[in-house]
Amino acid sequence: MIDSFGYAVKQAKVEFTPLEFKRRDLRPSDVLIDIMYCGICHSDIHKVKNEWGNTVYPLVPGHEIIGRVVSVGSSVKKFKAGDIAGVGVMVDSCGKCEYCKAGEENCCRNGFVGTYNYDEPYIGGRTYGGYSKNIVAPEKFTFRIAPNADLAATAPLLCAGVTTYVPLKRWKVGKGTKVGIVGLGGLGHMGVKLAHSFGAHVVVLTSSENKIKDAMRLGANEVLLWKNKNELEKHKVSFNFILDTVSAPHDVNQLLGLLDVGGAIVVVGIPSTPHSIDAGMLIGGHKILAGSGIGGTKETQEMLDYCAKNGIKSDIELIPITKLKEAYDRTEKSDVKYRFVIDMSSLKK
Amino acid sequence: MIDSFGYAVKQAKVEFTPLEFKRRDLRPSDVLIDIMYCGICHSDIHKVKNEWGNTVYPLVPGHEIIGRVVSVGSSVKKFKAGDIAGVGVMVDSCGKCEYCKAGEENCCRNGFVGTYNYDEPYIGGRTYGGYSKNIVAPEKFTFRIAPNADLAATAPLLCAGVTTYVPLKRWKVGKGTKVGIVGLGGLGHMGVKLAHSFGAHVVVLTSSENKIKDAMRLGANEVLLWKNKNELEKHKVSFNFILDTVSAPHDVNQLLGLLDVGGAIVVVGIPSTPHSIDAGMLIGGHKILAGSGIGGTKETQEMLDYCAKNGIKSDIELIPITKLKEAYDRTEKSDVKYRFVIDMSSLKK
Repeated sequence: MIDSFGYAVKQAKVEFTPLEFKRRDLRPSDVLIDIMYCGICHSDIHKVKNEWGNTVYPLVPGHEIIGRVVSVGSSVKKFKAGDIAGVGVMVDSCGKCEYCKAGEENCCRNGFVGTYNYDEPYIGGRTYGGYSKNIVAPEKFTFRIAPNADLAATAPLLCAGVTTYVPLKRWKVGKGTKVGIVGLGGLGHMGVKLAHSFGAHVVVLTSSENKIKDAMRLGANEVLLWKNKNELEKHKVSFNFILDTVSAPHDVNQLLGLLDVGGAIVVVGIPSTPHSIDAGMLIGGHKILAGSGIGGTKETQEMLDYCAKNGIKSDIELIPITKLKEAYDRTEKSDVKYRFVIDMSSLKK
Repeated sequence: MIDSFGYAVKQAKVEFTPLEFKRRDLRPSDVLIDIMYCGICHSDIHKVKNEWGNTVYPLVPGHEIIGRVVSVGSSVKKFKAGDIAGVGVMVDSCGKCEYCKAGEENCCRNGFVGTYNYDEPYIGGRTYGGYSKNIVAPEKFTFRIAPNADLAATAPLLCAGVTTYVPLKRWKVGKGTKVGIVGLGGLGHMGVKLAHSFGAHVVVLTSSENKIKDAMRLGANEVLLWKNKNELEKHKVSFNFILDTVSAPHDVNQLLGLLDVGGAIVVVGIPSTPHSIDAGMLIGGHKILAGSGIGGTKETQEMLDYCAKNGIKSDIELIPITKLKEAYDRTEKSDVKYRFVIDMSSLKK
């Protein structure tokens, strides 16, 4: 058993305390990584506060992990000690179903094992995430990271990056596509960068005027203030694709009215209340509303390689682990440009 | 001007009175058809009762029309007097946009002209539908009908047929596809026949046990009583495609739970209240909710030819025009197997 320690919450509030725990000994296919950086995903906050009702305490969050390989199991080929590696939202899956075989483990027939707060499949207990010293993960769920990358700013790619990359890719966003990105937060700002890099005409849909300048800097061609009726009118029936990253309740019917014939909205955020959808808005112009959740190991590595090659990274604020509460508070107020990342060298036993 | 007469409603209730009116003289591209049969679509009832709030009275409904060509304009090539012809939901469109040019006039950038209760583009007033002696329509919006077909039972194909054919075709339903058809009415029973003929494994989802036998007769492989939790459990995460024909409020989230990874629900009915959709149900397994509305002239003719070739027609109850009120009442109670069709020889001046 491998010693670890990290910051954990023990009840449904943002109150972290140090926790010592064990990682499993390396199986032949496992990799032990010393964590250097871990991004703060909004879902960490939902889980910490038990807002989805399924949290088991104590909880060590974190699934945007970058670190250095310390040692590897006997069958590991992809890594050696000293390599930089990443771990994202999943750390295991059945490995046998058609989706696991295709590298789409996020759709595993038997359910994937999440990086934190899932049942640990080998030594029991729960999985502990990246707000910690180290992590043990199977080679398959450990990603190659370009060693010359900006490592802190690469960490958020493991969740925010892949979550936006996959729908943009699968729905063939590129040259000639008019794309709307709804919400300019951790996910949205990655959506803008990626859609821009794919050659699309990118329109950021936001409710706040003070995001216009930043949206343009990130790669938007236009900004639509979607509470302004004139602007909505100007853009109606014109978007080929809209990536909706907002996880607060909002009017998706209005977005459907912006879609061109045959256009699609893909939602990646989960608001606390259901969307209200007029069937007529889907039927006229045969429009599409779809969902997308993270990505499998194949597309995650593809995305990391693409971002490394094209110089795409997250805009981040690097914090010491002692600032978690403040970072959570500010994330909830959307007061972050655009992702907090924990510098794990600040973690002292 | 061409004399016509038919049955009209003058206010928001099911109360038909005879009405005399004029059809326009034939333009070079027009066809004059003496109507033999006209189907009763549920949307006729919505319009008659002004349930969508946009009816202009007097209203002559009817957009599932089969008849015999009486005369044709000078440029008409597709028809000559004596031919059997059909008219569906549209009688005109701009003709200039990319959708009109592609035969997808239902998506016309400038809005199509509906067969009844739309602005008449050449002589003014409103368009009058098929509960009448004759109709004048452009050759482009007039369809070839196989003369040896069961003409009365072919009439409903012009709306119910194309509305179900188009989504099944576009979403590539066929051999190896597990398809759910929700609702076994005018649209649903056509969906079953078509999906079965495409080689799919067809499951009818219905709330009424007394439809099981009929569903199997129409071509279903299985029937799922969707108020039965055990049956829902048995079929969960297994459908590649679901065609939802129900226009009463119902739980689409439950249907999303039946979809396999990457599966799609297409709605063709418009309930009076919006659907409530959990984003999480779309995100897990990247599922799709889409809409589809009728079809263009290209797919309508394709569908008619396909049905003629494969012996597919509607199950109908043929009525004289004097029985409209009774037919409307029974349609509203889903007490029809599966479409009323008016025998227009019963229409006397």
